[in-house]
Amino acid sequence: MNQSLTPLFTALKHKNETVSCHVPGHKNGRVFLEEASPYYRKILRLDATEIEGLDDLHEPEGVIREAEELLSALYDSDSSFFLTGGSTSGNLALLLAAGPGEKIIVQRNSHQSVFHGLELADQQPVFLAPETDSVSGLGLGVSSRQLEKALRSHPDTKAVFLTNPTYEGYTLPLKEHVEVCRAYDTLLFVDEAHGAHFLPGSSPWFPESALSAGADAVVQSAHKTLPAMTMGAWLHLGVSMDKTEVKRRLSMIQSSSPSYPIMGSLDAARAYAARKNDWKETVEVISLHKKMLETKIRLLPESIGPYRLDPLKINLYTEEEGRPEKWQEQMKRERLFPELISPVHLLVVLSLDKEDISETIKKLAPVFSRETFIEKTHYPVPGKGLTSLVYTYGEMFTKKTHEVSWEESEGMTAAETVIPYPPGIPLLLRGERIHSTHVEERNRLRKKGVRIKGGREKLKVFDPGEDNKS
Amino acid sequence: MNQSLTPLFTALKHKNETVSCHVPGHKNGRVFLEEASPYYRKILRLDATEIEGLDDLHEPEGVIREAEELLSALYDSDSSFFLTGGSTSGNLALLLAAGPGEKIIVQRNSHQSVFHGLELADQQPVFLAPETDSVSGLGLGVSSRQLEKALRSHPDTKAVFLTNPTYEGYTLPLKEHVEVCRAYDTLLFVDEAHGAHFLPGSSPWFPESALSAGADAVVQSAHKTLPAMTMGAWLHLGVSMDKTEVKRRLSMIQSSSPSYPIMGSLDAARAYAARKNDWKETVEVISLHKKMLETKIRLLPESIGPYRLDPLKINLYTEEEGRPEKWQEQMKRERLFPELISPVHLLVVLSLDKEDISETIKKLAPVFSRETFIEKTHYPVPGKGLTSLVYTYGEMFTKKTHEVSWEESEGMTAAETVIPYPPGIPLLLRGERIHSTHVEERNRLRKKGVRIKGGREKLKVFDPGEDNKS
Ligand SMILES: Cc1ncc(COP(=O)(O)O)c(C=O)c1O
Ligand SMILES: Cc1ncc(COP(=O)(O)O)c(C=O)c1O
Repeated sequence: MNQSLTPLFTALKHKNETVSCHVPGHKNGRVFLEEASPYYRKILRLDATEIEGLDDLHEPEGVIREAEELLSALYDSDSSFFLTGGSTSGNLALLLAAGPGEKIIVQRNSHQSVFHGLELADQQPVFLAPETDSVSGLGLGVSSRQLEKALRSHPDTKAVFLTNPTYEGYTLPLKEHVEVCRAYDTLLFVDEAHGAHFLPGSSPWFPESALSAGADAVVQSAHKTLPAMTMGAWLHLGVSMDKTEVKRRLSMIQSSSPSYPIMGSLDAARAYAARKNDWKETVEVISLHKKMLETKIRLLPESIGPYRLDPLKINLYTEEEGRPEKWQEQMKRERLFPELISPVHLLVVLSLDKEDISETIKKLAPVFSRETFIEKTHYPVPGKGLTSLVYTYGEMFTKKTHEVSWEESEGMTAAETVIPYPPGIPLLLRGERIHSTHVEERNRLRKKGVRIKGGREKLKVFDPGEDNKS
Repeated sequence: MNQSLTPLFTALKHKNETVSCHVPGHKNGRVFLEEASPYYRKILRLDATEIEGLDDLHEPEGVIREAEELLSALYDSDSSFFLTGGSTSGNLALLLAAGPGEKIIVQRNSHQSVFHGLELADQQPVFLAPETDSVSGLGLGVSSRQLEKALRSHPDTKAVFLTNPTYEGYTLPLKEHVEVCRAYDTLLFVDEAHGAHFLPGSSPWFPESALSAGADAVVQSAHKTLPAMTMGAWLHLGVSMDKTEVKRRLSMIQSSSPSYPIMGSLDAARAYAARKNDWKETVEVISLHKKMLETKIRLLPESIGPYRLDPLKINLYTEEEGRPEKWQEQMKRERLFPELISPVHLLVVLSLDKEDISETIKKLAPVFSRETFIEKTHYPVPGKGLTSLVYTYGEMFTKKTHEVSWEESEGMTAAETVIPYPPGIPLLLRGERIHSTHVEERNRLRKKGVRIKGGREKLKVFDPGEDNKS
């Protein structure tokens, strides 16, 4: 197979001038709001429906199948699927495919989509608190030792769901986790949304993919670190997975009219990764730039214990109250926009293109003056050890709720999920017991002006009494 | 409110040249596969993430909120929401919001996404067979009398889910259905995927929207009949709906990184509909063209009993075996592509632009020579009266299955859904008892070369015995 080819994008491009007697209503871009047309005209020529020759995402036999086979070959998976609903749709489909009601061990600092999948599949989640960086307090991954302990307490677990890398870019070699899961006959799913550039070809310059380590299923947001359109993602499966059920679940969750521009961009992103032959040079360029930045400002380290940092991530670190906001403002004046800030850090995400990286960092560096380092307390990760929800999802749907002020909520059970965004990792889950750390952390983030979904002014909690429905 | 404005699209356009230190990995289009760049460059400038000023689809407070308010005002809804996962995501969210385990009355010729929503929410569906056209045999809608009867048998129904218009474009005034649902204290949801152009401004030239008739929730695929990008859709709610729960379900189903190009195109499509002031002329132009076509070929009528045809649809009708395939081939030679064919008809979908309509029909008309009309049997709609599934969704997940040939399947219970595509209306549902009409219809469609998902060679059925799981 020639990995440089783009079967799907090429078919879209060569779709000769046709006359559309079908949807979509823009008719290959001929009909559109006038002032928006200059932006949309070109892409609308690719915004087709499943007419002959363009195949069908949900049952591919032609160019989409070829494109997915090239993807599978490049990542060395048993099979791979394009997603047009983001990693969200992959995470949901995997959990649903694991089966309703099953017990699932989930890393507590997972993305909200993982928690949504647990609820949709009405599963019994067991949450596993991640290790934290002792300096910054940032959440990392789950060690294989922790995982082994959790599986020993819950040997009836159907699947384990881990996130690797973290939002900040820390990765863990997962070979040991794979062995532990095999020993307990449990499936290992990995949310690798931020690791679409981890593939055999980029190793060892970039961290190893969960798939190479032997995970059963891996979800990657191509749009995050490869050049694909937003919502473009893909899912890789190993040999142990029931493909029919995963495909059925993907067809349930995703639109029956998937976007060809997004699918075409996935084909292009795969070809981009296949053709890239300067992974080493890319990492070397980043390394040099990071060294230069480090003369002025503190960065989170290249590795923390066994956790290795993805070279594409730069975490500016501080313990000075309010500093990340100031950094962000300084950047904004130069029209530079970071990925996110927290009370202790600011995250920069680089592209895979050497020239683009150099230009970006050259613009970024002058923003910062030499910083003095001040040590202060870090911010906590929610949950400790193994935790679970107070009620099942079914119970929660029928229980009565009321609102309380955050101050009086301690000890009660949350009836809504509270999510600082980004990174979209829930601070407090619907169904979790509320601790003082939840309240303190929420107040702190709130004061910082961080965007928080749920629990705006008051917080919804469950009534302690009986169910209100028979 | 000035309905001509495009708050979201304009904000995207004015997002001045910024330096991206964040996802997506294409960095405003600077990094992309070279040969695909000419098609994608312009749109990637709009393919942003939730940086300042671009708001957040899942909790809108700025330009997305303004755009959704303009949408709501134009359609006269209580509130309206942009969808980036197609009408599929709206249908799923509505059913999930109705609550797990609830009883739902569903029109049997609904789109597959409605059946998927029922399974995700683990609900008890009661299926209602639609009325059929006595000439063509095509499925139509459900009468208010049928609905009343069904609700009388199932007064504990939480919601009714109807589809209006049908794929072929037949619509029903739903005021009586609304009254029946109110009398039984039941919510009425309408899948109006093909009716995004039904709004107060287009009435009475186009059929009345389900929303104007008083439905509680209405889903529309903006991409199908208005000029929006594929996957662009929206959801309108009436005052009776629990907005918080619907929003929560939408956030569960849709990507946490929704596509700005798709959202921007929804803003543009809404403005297109708001500015359009020649609805009447558009319908008149179509009428003239249809009259001309009718001198050569038989069309399904402008109305069948109370069912009124959407002017944008032209259904070429025949009862001659194999004729629709021949039409399709003739069209293809002129590079014209229809929306779909069935054993008895070929469907053409027009745009809303007078010039585009005229040009399309001028190219279409010469394809057809004068036809002789031959009467023959029509094709059946699956199911009669009220039906339900043999097992609950939970039971189906744990039951053992095996494969049988289609010939021996009669009387057994299907373990996979079988969907001719398009239109994506299931012929046989997972959990339905198999009748001889299912087998005959499948064989007929198969012979015609219609694309069918599920039951390829053999058919999966449930073992009759006990559950295989405790
Ligand atoms: C770790 C993680 N997983 C999953 C997702 C969801 O991916 P998407 O936005 O592609 O749907 C995100 C998005 O931020 C994420 O950070
Ligand atoms: C009646 C009906 N409802 C819903 C859908 C799903 O809409 P979308 O493709 O926008 O997800 C379709 C698509 O064909 C449809 O025909």
